[in-house]
Amino acid sequence: MDQYYLGGEGDSASTGPAPELTVTQWFNTDTPLTLEALRGRVVVIEAFQMLCPGCVAHGLPQAVRIRQTFGAADVAVIGLHTVFEHHEAMTPTALEAFLYEYHIQFPVAVDAPCEGHPIPRTMAAYAMQGTPTLILIDRRGRRRAQYFGEVSDLRLGAEIMALATEAK
Amino acid sequence: MDQYYLGGEGDSASTGPAPELTVTQWFNTDTPLTLEALRGRVVVIEAFQMLCPGCVAHGLPQAVRIRQTFGAADVAVIGLHTVFEHHEAMTPTALEAFLYEYHIQFPVAVDAPCEGHPIPRTMAAYAMQGTPTLILIDRRGRRRAQYFGEVSDLRLGAEIMALATEAK
Amino acid sequence: MDQYYLGGEGDSASTGPAPELTVTQWFNTDTPLTLEALRGRVVVIEAFQMLCPGCVAHGLPQAVRIRQTFGAADVAVIGLHTVFEHHEAMTPTALEAFLYEYHIQFPVAVDAPCEGHPIPRTMAAYAMQGTPTLILIDRRGRRRAQYFGEVSDLRLGAEIMALATEAK
Amino acid sequence: MDQYYLGGEGDSASTGPAPELTVTQWFNTDTPLTLEALRGRVVVIEAFQMLCPGCVAHGLPQAVRIRQTFGAADVAVIGLHTVFEHHEAMTPTALEAFLYEYHIQFPVAVDAPCEGHPIPRTMAAYAMQGTPTLILIDRRGRRRAQYFGEVSDLRLGAEIMALATEAK
Repeated sequence: MDQYYLGGEGDSASTGPAPELTVTQWFNTDTPLTLEALRGRVVVIEAFQMLCPGCVAHGLPQAVRIRQTFGAADVAVIGLHTVFEHHEAMTPTALEAFLYEYHIQFPVAVDAPCEGHPIPRTMAAYAMQGTPTLILIDRRGRRRAQYFGEVSDLRLGAEIMALATEAK
Repeated sequence: MDQYYLGGEGDSASTGPAPELTVTQWFNTDTPLTLEALRGRVVVIEAFQMLCPGCVAHGLPQAVRIRQTFGAADVAVIGLHTVFEHHEAMTPTALEAFLYEYHIQFPVAVDAPCEGHPIPRTMAAYAMQGTPTLILIDRRGRRRAQYFGEVSDLRLGAEIMALATEAK
Repeated sequence: MDQYYLGGEGDSASTGPAPELTVTQWFNTDTPLTLEALRGRVVVIEAFQMLCPGCVAHGLPQAVRIRQTFGAADVAVIGLHTVFEHHEAMTPTALEAFLYEYHIQFPVAVDAPCEGHPIPRTMAAYAMQGTPTLILIDRRGRRRAQYFGEVSDLRLGAEIMALATEAK
Repeated sequence: MDQYYLGGEGDSASTGPAPELTVTQWFNTDTPLTLEALRGRVVVIEAFQMLCPGCVAHGLPQAVRIRQTFGAADVAVIGLHTVFEHHEAMTPTALEAFLYEYHIQFPVAVDAPCEGHPIPRTMAAYAMQGTPTLILIDRRGRRRAQYFGEVSDLRLGAEIMALATEAK
């Protein structure tokens, strides 16, 4: 059973302030985004790698559906390219071609590499376990859920709406 | 585009009081249910016919997922067998076998036939256009959305949650 | 691994003459069919029950695809309604409505009930274990494969073609 | 209707000798392969690009299923990375990571680039229109079918078997 109880916590422990993004580059947006500037909206972060089969088959299409379902004034959807393996293959140049071919149109950031470590900076700050990871941040900038792997659309729709109906 | 704007109305016109169910028989519940008795909870009605391919492939599995996703104290899920064609084939006896084979475990009512008319009584009262039809009723007993055909899980999850977070 | 080796036997033991159909009624054909009359063609028998979820989701759609893929002069596709449970629900009347709603257009026979036994006659003659069961009969009338449950399209396409290329 | 008639030609015009592969590199094989060396077996060539959504979702999984369904002694399955766009993104290094992540275990060749032209050499020799393209070569080395886009498993299983049953 995997029932959503109102007021429940999801399977994510942390509900503190969401760490700011540390990124080197943005696609699909003229100006770089920050969580701080998005305060007041619910933020959905889809952390992915372009060569991660689960991201391509499930995570990213789900993020596209979220973008299509909720109004942008209430819910921001951001992709975060958290490369922690095959760094030489998943370059920003390759990512750009990938986003074009897969028609990803929401803003996507490149997570900042960390010298001497395979895990990039934002991924480390959020203690993500892998990709795809989906993170929900409320209107006040607090991380409210973080899911590694697949989450059902029904549950996600419910959780995003629960955050969206909270007071700003 | 099919974006859900907070405060929006869905594609359903009516937001008045939901007509009470007029049914002849219940499966999967010891005592007959009424909308009045369910007041205080969000009610999801999945109107279907057992020989309707769209109901079998989409509507009913979605209702099962709703049942698994939301807590029963907040959200009630009810099936309504609204037979408006092939009446001789979709009898209560056949329905019982169907529910068993498809592992439908939430309460299912048989919509009351209307003599001389193919459309049964509750289906007529709600002016449903066919099956599957999904109806959302809020905690105060008002019909808030009615969808004929497929609705995405993401949108439905959001709409159910929006109703669930309203005050009783 | 589930590799098809040319000249292999599938997972079916019997390769003797296919027992003749013992049926009470046909749909979608003006004249009753017999295996004897179909001699010279490959015959695909899809044995199903209208309230069997695996038949509705997999077996029957696959039989429709077989019908659309192979020419009727080489390959005959027959449905066989082998009711062994819920007899009171899966009547010929109900079957007729089912075939109409699911757009099944190839000939479908009702397997002859056997008094005092739940298993109908053809199902017993073929020693089927349940539904869906798919049976392949070669141009000379010999049963060459019998599968209970799902078989992949790729394998089935190969096996039907292997039989179709055999001399009449 | 899209029926396969025995003796038919598929939707491919050419049935002449299959042009030899012109490639720069192989993955998943210790020794380079040639069509000449594969003479006597049916050869299935899956031409793809690692950032082509249709290849990732349909073409390559189908090639994997072909590899699992037919015995290697009768049917050889080869991937051909025919990069004709985003050359800077789909390098051999990126391809290697892709093959690893997607568990592609059959031999894959890198189609030889053609200076001054976006279309690589083998792709040009076969006059492919894009990716995915699936090519069937018979035991005698003749190209017998060439499909751009999706082909059904049922049809493909049949066509491969038709070639496999031909005399060497």
